[in-house]
This record gives sequence, structure tokens and C-alpha cells, in this order.
Amino acid sequence: MRDVSIIGIGVTKFGELWDKSLRQIGLEAGLAAIQDSGIKRDDIDALYIGNMASGATIQQEHVSALIADYCGLTNNNIPAVRIESASASGGLALRQGYMAVAGGFADIVVVGGAEKMTDVSDAKSAYTNSMGSDEQWESQVGATFPSLHAMMAQTYMKKHGTSREELSAVAEKNHMHGAMNPDAQFPFPIRAEAVSNSSLVSTPLRMLDCAPNSDGGAAVILCASERAKEFTDKPIKITGSGQASDTLSLHHREDLGRMKAINVAAKEAFKQAGKKPKDLDLAEIHDNFTITELIALEEIGIFKEGEAGAKTLEGMTKISSEIPINTSGGLKSRGHAPGATGIAQAVEIVRQLRGEAGDRQVKNAKCGLIENHGGTAATAVVHILEVE
Amino acid sequence: MRDVSIIGIGVTKFGELWDKSLRQIGLEAGLAAIQDSGIKRDDIDALYIGNMASGATIQQEHVSALIADYCGLTNNNIPAVRIESASASGGLALRQGYMAVAGGFADIVVVGGAEKMTDVSDAKSAYTNSMGSDEQWESQVGATFPSLHAMMAQTYMKKHGTSREELSAVAEKNHMHGAMNPDAQFPFPIRAEAVSNSSLVSTPLRMLDCAPNSDGGAAVILCASERAKEFTDKPIKITGSGQASDTLSLHHREDLGRMKAINVAAKEAFKQAGKKPKDLDLAEIHDNFTITELIALEEIGIFKEGEAGAKTLEGMTKISSEIPINTSGGLKSRGHAPGATGIAQAVEIVRQLRGEAGDRQVKNAKCGLIENHGGTAATAVVHILEVE
Repeated sequence: MRDVSIIGIGVTKFGELWDKSLRQIGLEAGLAAIQDSGIKRDDIDALYIGNMASGATIQQEHVSALIADYCGLTNNNIPAVRIESASASGGLALRQGYMAVAGGFADIVVVGGAEKMTDVSDAKSAYTNSMGSDEQWESQVGATFPSLHAMMAQTYMKKHGTSREELSAVAEKNHMHGAMNPDAQFPFPIRAEAVSNSSLVSTPLRMLDCAPNSDGGAAVILCASERAKEFTDKPIKITGSGQASDTLSLHHREDLGRMKAINVAAKEAFKQAGKKPKDLDLAEIHDNFTITELIALEEIGIFKEGEAGAKTLEGMTKISSEIPINTSGGLKSRGHAPGATGIAQAVEIVRQLRGEAGDRQVKNAKCGLIENHGGTAATAVVHILEVE
Repeated sequence: MRDVSIIGIGVTKFGELWDKSLRQIGLEAGLAAIQDSGIKRDDIDALYIGNMASGATIQQEHVSALIADYCGLTNNNIPAVRIESASASGGLALRQGYMAVAGGFADIVVVGGAEKMTDVSDAKSAYTNSMGSDEQWESQVGATFPSLHAMMAQTYMKKHGTSREELSAVAEKNHMHGAMNPDAQFPFPIRAEAVSNSSLVSTPLRMLDCAPNSDGGAAVILCASERAKEFTDKPIKITGSGQASDTLSLHHREDLGRMKAINVAAKEAFKQAGKKPKDLDLAEIHDNFTITELIALEEIGIFKEGEAGAKTLEGMTKISSEIPINTSGGLKSRGHAPGATGIAQAVEIVRQLRGEAGDRQVKNAKCGLIENHGGTAATAVVHILEVE
């Protein structure tokens, strides 16, 4: 298997992008990444697109061909593949693109993610999230996406004595980071008290525990490492890639307060990279709800089981602290466009490892991790990125 | 890159399967393939699922995790990936699974496809097809899926002088084959005159020129060839795999009467296999409309441009003739469940190459081709299978 590097990145601002269609969002992110990398169109061997729900939201499937077409890539007839895995669609597209290069099927691959969540009613947009859960056993019978995560939170918090303040500290910290990210949907700070006092959605989760449903796009250019220096002085190597599944429906699980697929995927990625959690300089974690950031940090092994809340409250996950988590603002502040999220996470880690993260730069960042999951973590994808 | 073989196959009957849900269809096909292969659950390294439109039709995305869950594969936390590429979703899932094994990421992979097209109104089901075209420039402004293919047919037929009888001969021949396939949705013969006199859908295409919108599932078990003999005496090797894209919208193309992506994908597959069209003993072709079988046969190089209609009318594509095409009955008679179709094609070729095709067995079949495309062939996938 060959080594694979990221040689270009692009991301759109996340938000309610009512003046842009899905194809425009995909095009904007893709062209930014191509421009950043210095490759030419004819260098591209394949395209992988992460997208969750364009069929349900904008009556458009086959978005890989759509974006290939609008990026002018069909002149070369290159293969274009859409990957869907709910909110892990982006991370999983990254992994499939990685496999295409590592396996020797392509030298240069564009991996893009795009999602349009706000061209439907708020109710439909919320229901779209539920399509990543088990329709027959969960969403159809009224279990909303927040209510499923509320059950996870109840189980976890009861077991570990996690406090309301610890949950709120996650959102406060991510907004503090996101305030320094011009691409963020909500680039402003919020106080923990505001989180704790925001409208109740599903006990114990409140409105400011929840990430938004965003429009947005992101893209990275993957290149066989042996050729990366042709295009950039700062290639970032993908040294570990892991993926795992769990039951789709929550009631099939032994422990509702765990997300085991993340644990398995992280172990696989660490093993491949020859790294341990203590080797990480920073990580982007899939905080679709505050509770999931805490559980994920423990599944990855960054903190021991039950300790992530207290560590967050102590400020250990802030920039310039022990292990900066979600320097981009995370899903909570940067926004969450399912197909794009996992790739936007990669964009942030690459910016940090290149030393191009501006006000939110983590000093001497050499090794970062990305954790992206779909549904209630029925699919989890973990990547480790390093400075070469 | 390692050689990859198919060691197990499974397929459901296609049709209006109102008594079965998507997960049941996926489970039925997957377990049949696992049983056929003799592998155990713990042998499976990864799952790839082809599915076009479950979000739009049954409010369920994330179907890879769904099917992994219901097949009992989440105990092992194996990676599960959904691939979507309109009607090419199945063929493209096969290709991605092939790449996972060939690239050394997995030894044994289950590739499944499942689709539920009939749990919605007929109008919605028809519109779902259109989601594989360009929503903004085609379906939204009233270009139905048959009308796009009617434009292709008009262009092709005018250029080559193709007759109504030649189109009808495609459907008659595929039903003649499908009548011998117990898994077919319409396992009975139809006369060419009945095709020519069926209701007009969009000039020149009539009702019996069109494949149905079906429910159905299919699965194959892929194995690194070096291990295939552990499980079967009759492994079938994938010797060529090709994929290509074209513009999503028809009006972007130079020639509406061609499907260039098929040509590019076929050339790539032939090159890898070291074969030529004349080496083929049979092929499964994506006849979602009668016209596409004719165009595809020429893009692949089985017949010269403009000659496929006359050759079909002469009977050259019947079983026991020169080059049997769609011995399964094709999309027209076996049925067309988008996510499953490309994999059902592989199941048929494997049956033929194993000599297990019963009444429709092609004598001395050693080398077969599969052509599967999405939309108006904005995505095309071609595989070549051979007896080892």
C-alpha cells in the first residue's frame, strides 16, 4: 500500500446558503482545493463525493456525476463516486478516496463533500437528520434525532455523574474557537450559562447543545505521497485510517452511553499510524451534540471513561491547553453540513498542521486526528494526519 | 494489486415486493450469497451496499449500517459503505468492493444491492428515476426519464436509420430469455408486435420499451483470489473493472445518440483483462430502455456503430446465437431495482460461467461482461468476469 498525502484544501462558509445551489457549493469548495493544490484538471484521476440526503432534500441523486459535470471533469470521463453514510458521508468519502490512492488505482483524487439542508422546511430538515437513524424502529415511531442523543446523554451522565455545566462547557469552548474561524456559521462566543438556560429540546439536551443543520461544502486533494512534492512544500500525510460499524438502532446496543464504533475505528487508525492518543497535538471531533464530544473523546482514548466532562470544564480542550479539540469551532459553531462535515474537519487539521490557522493556530501542531460519525455512531470513521 | 474472485452469489426475485421491507430484501440476498459461498460471518472484512434512493422513497439513508445491522455483522464492527450512483449504484458498489480487496484492505467483502421502489405512488416512483438525471435542468422543468431516453433514441435512430422493429426485437429477445429465469419479475415471453403496439410513452418509446421500477436485492461475495479455493471449486475471477463519467445533463453532450462513458469504461475493463469484444461469450447490458441496449452494445464494441439494431433483429443476441445478451432477461424482463441491478447482472454472469444457468445456459461460457449505468449514462461501470 502506498502512502497518501493531502496537497490541497478548500471549504465554503457554512450556513443557510439560500443564494447557492448544491452544485455551486460543491464547485466552490472543489475549485478552492484545486487552486490551493496547484494541480491541473488533467491531473485528476478520480472524484469521491460525500453527500447524505440530496435525494430527500433537493430531489437530486447521482451528485457525484453532477459535481464532476459542473467542475468540468467529465471531459476527461474520470470516475466519480458518491458515498453516503449519514453524517459520516464526508469522512467515509475521504477514506474511500484514500483507499483508491493507497491501493494504486489513482494518483490524484479530489474528495469533496456538499450538502444542502436548508432548502426544505425546518421540520423536513430535522426529519432528514433522522434518516441516519433506524426509520422503522426509531424515527417513524417518533424518536427524533435529538431524543436519541438525549437517551445516550441520560445513560452516560447517570453512569458518570456528568453535570449540566460540563455539557455546557463543550459548547462554550467550541464557540470560543469558532469565533476565530471566518468560515464558521456562528463565529461568535456564547456563555456556558446561555447554553444551560437555552430552550429544552429533549432532556437533558437544550438548543445550544445541538449543532445546526447547515448548507456547506469542503474538499481536499489527495495525492500519492511519492508525487506530493511536485505540487506543494507542505504535504500532510494520512498516516492512519479506520472505520467501524455499530447497530443502526440504539435499542440494539448493550450500553446506550457508549459509541463503540468510534473506539474500534480509532484503534485501527492509531495502529496503522503507530501512534497513541497522547501523541496527538489536536483533534476535530464530531460534536453534533455536546454529549457526543464527551463520549467520543473517551472512545478515542484521549480521556479515560467518565472524565471528559471534568477535563472540558477545566479547560483542557481549549486552544493552547493540553489537547485542543475542535479548533474550527466544531459542528456546533462552524456548522454541520452532513456530507461536507468530515472533509471540513480534515481541512481544519491540514490548516493547523501547515501552520495556516491564523488566530486559532495550535503551536507546533504535528499530529492531528479527525473523528466523524453517522447516525448515533452506527458508522464511525477516524483519520490521523501528520506533518511529513 | 491482487486478483479478486467471486465466491458466492445471491439474488431475490424482483418485482413489487409489498410484503418485504428494504432490510428484509437486503438480508435475503446477503444471506443467500453467504450461504452459497460457505464463508462464516467472522470471515467478512467489509460490506459495500449499492442503493439509489432509499432516502427519497422510504425516508432511510445510512442503509449500509442498516443492512450490516440486520445481517448481524455489527457484532464484528466491520466497515459498511453505501455507494450511490443512480441506476449504476450496484455496479459501482461492486467496483468499490473489488478495489478494497485488490488494494489489500480486505480479504473477503460482501457487496450487496437493495432497492424499494414500489412503496411510493407510481408518480413518485417515476420521479425517483429522474433523480438520476439533472434535477435543475431536466426533471424540474418536465423532462421525464423516458423523455430523455426518447431524445437519445430519436437522435440515434435518425442517424442510423434504426427501425421500430429493431427496438421491439430487443424487448422480445429479453423476455424470451427472462421466461427461463424464475427470479425474473416478468418471466414470460412477449411478441415484438405487442411492443410496437403498446402505449406510447414518449416518441418513439412505448411502454414495452421501458424496464419496470422494481423492488429487489442481489449480493456477491468477493474474495482475494489466492484464498478463493478455500471456499469454492468454482471461483469466478474479475479480470477487468472500468468506470467513467459523462455530463449529467443530456444537453451538455456533443451527440445525444451516444453514451460515451460506457465506451471509456469498457475500454478500461478490456485493457485490464487483456481481452477484446470478440472474446466475450455473453454479456449483461443495462437495457433500462430498448434503445440503451443497442447503443451500449456499440459503445462496448460488440457491434459496429449503427449495426446493433439489425444484428438484434437477425437474432444474433439470443442464447445459442453469436453473442447472447441479457440471458437473465435484462432490466426489461428480470426487473430493475436500481441499487441491486448491477449486482444481479454479476449474479447472472457467475451462474453462466459456473454452468448453473439451467434452461438458459450458454454453452462453454468462459468470459462474460457486465455493463451498468446511471442516469442517461453519466456514470458507467463495466466489469469482465472469467472462469479461472
